[in-house]
Amino acid sequence: MSEGVTAGGGSDVIVVGGGIGGLATAYALAKEGQRVRVLERASRFAEVGAGLQMAPNATRILREWGMLDAVLEKGVLPRRLVFKDALDGRELTHLDLGEEFQARYGAPYVVLHRGDLLAILVEGCRAAGVELVPGTDVDDVEIGPEAAVARAGEHEFSADVLLAADGLHSSLRVKLTDDEAVCSGYVAYRGAFPVAELDRELDDRALEEVVVYLGPGRHLVQYPLRGGELFNTVAVFESPSYHRGEADWGGPEELDEVFAGACDQVRRGLGSLWRDRRWPMYDREPISNWVSGRFALTGDAAHPMLQYLAQGACQAIEDAHCLSTELAKTASADTPRWPSALAAYERARTERTAGVQRAARVWGDIWHVDGLARLLRNELFTDRDPADFKHIDWLYSL
Amino acid sequence: MSEGVTAGGGSDVIVVGGGIGGLATAYALAKEGQRVRVLERASRFAEVGAGLQMAPNATRILREWGMLDAVLEKGVLPRRLVFKDALDGRELTHLDLGEEFQARYGAPYVVLHRGDLLAILVEGCRAAGVELVPGTDVDDVEIGPEAAVARAGEHEFSADVLLAADGLHSSLRVKLTDDEAVCSGYVAYRGAFPVAELDRELDDRALEEVVVYLGPGRHLVQYPLRGGELFNTVAVFESPSYHRGEADWGGPEELDEVFAGACDQVRRGLGSLWRDRRWPMYDREPISNWVSGRFALTGDAAHPMLQYLAQGACQAIEDAHCLSTELAKTASADTPRWPSALAAYERARTERTAGVQRAARVWGDIWHVDGLARLLRNELFTDRDPADFKHIDWLYSL
Repeated sequence: MSEGVTAGGGSDVIVVGGGIGGLATAYALAKEGQRVRVLERASRFAEVGAGLQMAPNATRILREWGMLDAVLEKGVLPRRLVFKDALDGRELTHLDLGEEFQARYGAPYVVLHRGDLLAILVEGCRAAGVELVPGTDVDDVEIGPEAAVARAGEHEFSADVLLAADGLHSSLRVKLTDDEAVCSGYVAYRGAFPVAELDRELDDRALEEVVVYLGPGRHLVQYPLRGGELFNTVAVFESPSYHRGEADWGGPEELDEVFAGACDQVRRGLGSLWRDRRWPMYDREPISNWVSGRFALTGDAAHPMLQYLAQGACQAIEDAHCLSTELAKTASADTPRWPSALAAYERARTERTAGVQRAARVWGDIWHVDGLARLLRNELFTDRDPADFKHIDWLYSL
Repeated sequence: MSEGVTAGGGSDVIVVGGGIGGLATAYALAKEGQRVRVLERASRFAEVGAGLQMAPNATRILREWGMLDAVLEKGVLPRRLVFKDALDGRELTHLDLGEEFQARYGAPYVVLHRGDLLAILVEGCRAAGVELVPGTDVDDVEIGPEAAVARAGEHEFSADVLLAADGLHSSLRVKLTDDEAVCSGYVAYRGAFPVAELDRELDDRALEEVVVYLGPGRHLVQYPLRGGELFNTVAVFESPSYHRGEADWGGPEELDEVFAGACDQVRRGLGSLWRDRRWPMYDREPISNWVSGRFALTGDAAHPMLQYLAQGACQAIEDAHCLSTELAKTASADTPRWPSALAAYERARTERTAGVQRAARVWGDIWHVDGLARLLRNELFTDRDPADFKHIDWLYSL
């Protein structure tokens, strides 16, 4: 199938943005019989070449969509999610991700390459008849009570409904709010390298676990990808130069400075990062209105969140599942289906995702505390029964 | 027996200071056959009329000294030591002080009136032949390798050994160090009133428990005294005027201001305080040299501590017990007994009390945290199994 520019024409649904959330939404609605067109600014459908964590609240949906086998084939089922102290390296607590966990939540915890998940979604979309339109930068939309139009240069696309899946810096979100993204002052560095290319030996467990090192104003996450062929590292820190008001903040020299006091394992991990690219970390305040006429927000465009709960993609997949399910419920209605489906979607999703956005901030704060609060956090974590899921049920159960 | 000024003459031991620690030391040494004289500046042996907590590490010793029955007769055996949040009033955790606790530590947890404990010690000292000399303000001591002399005005007292039990602001401590007391910036208000005089109803539990309300920069402690006839309250807060550098800091208007945001129960407790007296809270850094020739520090003169572990009097009683035990061990020695007894006492006690001094500071910090650290503290406390004694064994076991 060609991914060249499409010459306009009608469809049931336009999705603006072909990332993980946009493709998931397109797939889910196509499965419900909608003719869906995805407009993507970039010249091809691609994702940053780093890892992604998929919790059971998302993998449960991927299984329903028939995509879990492909995900498991490309990904890794880590045995444990381990929290360690970034300063002394001590293990604080862990979550056992084995059979008991999978039975409790009805689905596995998987880590995989973002590009692999995107490829699975692209393939699913194509199979479901979604029209994928790359190289199409939407510069205007027109929202009516019964239809919507997207314009990209000289092209015009019309549909019954238009869904914004254009991410944290969504240009379409302005249809509902003039809020701004909130900068956390933290910046992330990532890296995913073939294990064979790493300049150090990994211990056996490194290829079986997700390990998070928690430190004052900094943390490091490591896990394997692609059946253990790749090793993924994320380092995140609070940038002193951001707080000094500098425009070019969070550079790689700061990465080294901030992590200088960390334990050996963490400092060694800095060698497995791309140093020429960085991701300043933003979120937004939750909002309760995602829908206007035949227009709705999804994914990061609706609820961008800090990554501490690793729920960005998971919540976008929940959005897609919710919207398609609500649409399905309206199948026998005499009236137009979209208004009630969108209203139900908004009701169901805004509260849930606001909770995740807020919890992600608090969870990040807990990761990054110093001094006495760090000792209390470590004591709390160390005391925790690894079989106690009370802090996680709300997020992973549906 | 008269408590008038004694006209000098020799004894085996001079104790300077007739508070709880000084009398405990005098009693313990008299029981070992020493002729002991206690020099007290005040015109009578008395203590502030408020409550005191005695943990098993001290009541165990009081029982050995035959004083526990009298203590139990005057005191209260609280059923629980309860920690609540001072802002929302929620119970966080508790320590069950019943049979299991008493069996674990071999002695009970008792709360009693300071004056009652002092009277019991005075009676014990008299029965043991201790010479109690009030109205005697020691203004000079002379320490030699084999004896010591204390001068108070025109009176001179000589002994084999001189023990400083003159408290936090010890004038004798300068013989060993020129350190200064460390001001915490916190101030305590106390009050002990007949239950019948309180302008409010106490619930049934209030007369059976020690309750500590923990809040940001403030706390409140309440417990019954004298079989439930008296009700004791202590309110402590970090003084804004201290941090502004004002000389007259921590006044009662600040007490009300700082506690304004506390829960109802805590604010009601402020009505049970004496408002015309206050105790600024000091401690000192631990030191490892308590002994010089025939001179040694004991009690608060040796190891003044913040009161968060309620161990000030308990550690002074441990000092007394240790010193008398070490002296007893030397009974069959051919050489002078004091040098080896004092050396052993210093070895045994400096490390223990330094640990308690440091732990008291940390414990106070944990009580007074705000924000995220408060949430972590509350979660940690709430998660705690009330039957878990791991954080207390080091202190209450001997």
